[in-house]
Amino acid sequence: MFDFEGKIRNVPDFPKKGIGFKDITTLVGDGQALRETIKRMKGLFADDKIDAVIGIESRGFIFAAILAYEWGVGFVPVRKPGKLPAKTISESYELEYGQDSLEIHVDAIKQGQNVLIVDDLLATGGTIVATTRLAERLGANVVGCCFLVELDFLGARKKLTGYRVESLVHFSEE
Amino acid sequence: MFDFEGKIRNVPDFPKKGIGFKDITTLVGDGQALRETIKRMKGLFADDKIDAVIGIESRGFIFAAILAYEWGVGFVPVRKPGKLPAKTISESYELEYGQDSLEIHVDAIKQGQNVLIVDDLLATGGTIVATTRLAERLGANVVGCCFLVELDFLGARKKLTGYRVESLVHFSEE
Repeated sequence: MFDFEGKIRNVPDFPKKGIGFKDITTLVGDGQALRETIKRMKGLFADDKIDAVIGIESRGFIFAAILAYEWGVGFVPVRKPGKLPAKTISESYELEYGQDSLEIHVDAIKQGQNVLIVDDLLATGGTIVATTRLAERLGANVVGCCFLVELDFLGARKKLTGYRVESLVHFSEE
Repeated sequence: MFDFEGKIRNVPDFPKKGIGFKDITTLVGDGQALRETIKRMKGLFADDKIDAVIGIESRGFIFAAILAYEWGVGFVPVRKPGKLPAKTISESYELEYGQDSLEIHVDAIKQGQNVLIVDDLLATGGTIVATTRLAERLGANVVGCCFLVELDFLGARKKLTGYRVESLVHFSEE
């Protein structure tokens, strides 16, 4: 199997002291690694009928856009507040200190569509939970949530009970 | 020819009164339109040897990532300050009021590589000029700058003399 983990750079003390940041730019900056990543993500959902791929701003756009293109379906962005110009709905989520929110265009998904939600990293799970809510409020069926990297030690999966969650690379400790 | 313009939504008074915002989410949300967009962008640079595709945060990521994937080359993000975790260089550019800057990882491009810079929209040209400088400071050869939409009436092309600039859709007035 392709060594995805070997293409991810660990950046110590980013964004703050004591945190080891999983930098995926080294993976996407390698043409072969990018190809292998998409091949594997596609394979995981090869038996599903996906009508649209939702990407979470901004690194999620990279993988979600390519998957949408490959499947010939629409790409739907979920963005920070105030970025999407037309009518939106919003969901907030908790941060370590305070909260933030995400938005989706109300007409981006049609009732009953099967959607795949894609992001680069599953950490505490706040953004993905908010995104599943946004999709479902628009009547979508969330087929799954797909990540390049999952930080297992943060335990986000317990917030995603009932959803199919797939990650290519797992880190079991910080 | 595919009607790219017909897939772009005009949102009046966004982000402020009197501005008509060109919303590309309606285009990328349409699987066929996304395919046609990439086909056309690929065709424009079919005779060039591209070693890496640079995408400007965040909507530029959508098209740049797909092109990099299609060509089997690396995708390189240019981002707002503080987002890229490893060592970066920075270029500032003028806004209507004040200034902002963009960053690139110093090891994202190798000396002598041919790069294509991709963004969704060419408006005043501040971000694309900053991005050409970032790429060239790392020793890249900028093969061209590719946009989905160009706002001709803002005259950004005169800041890009000597560069090949390609846009799929032109708006000649506000």
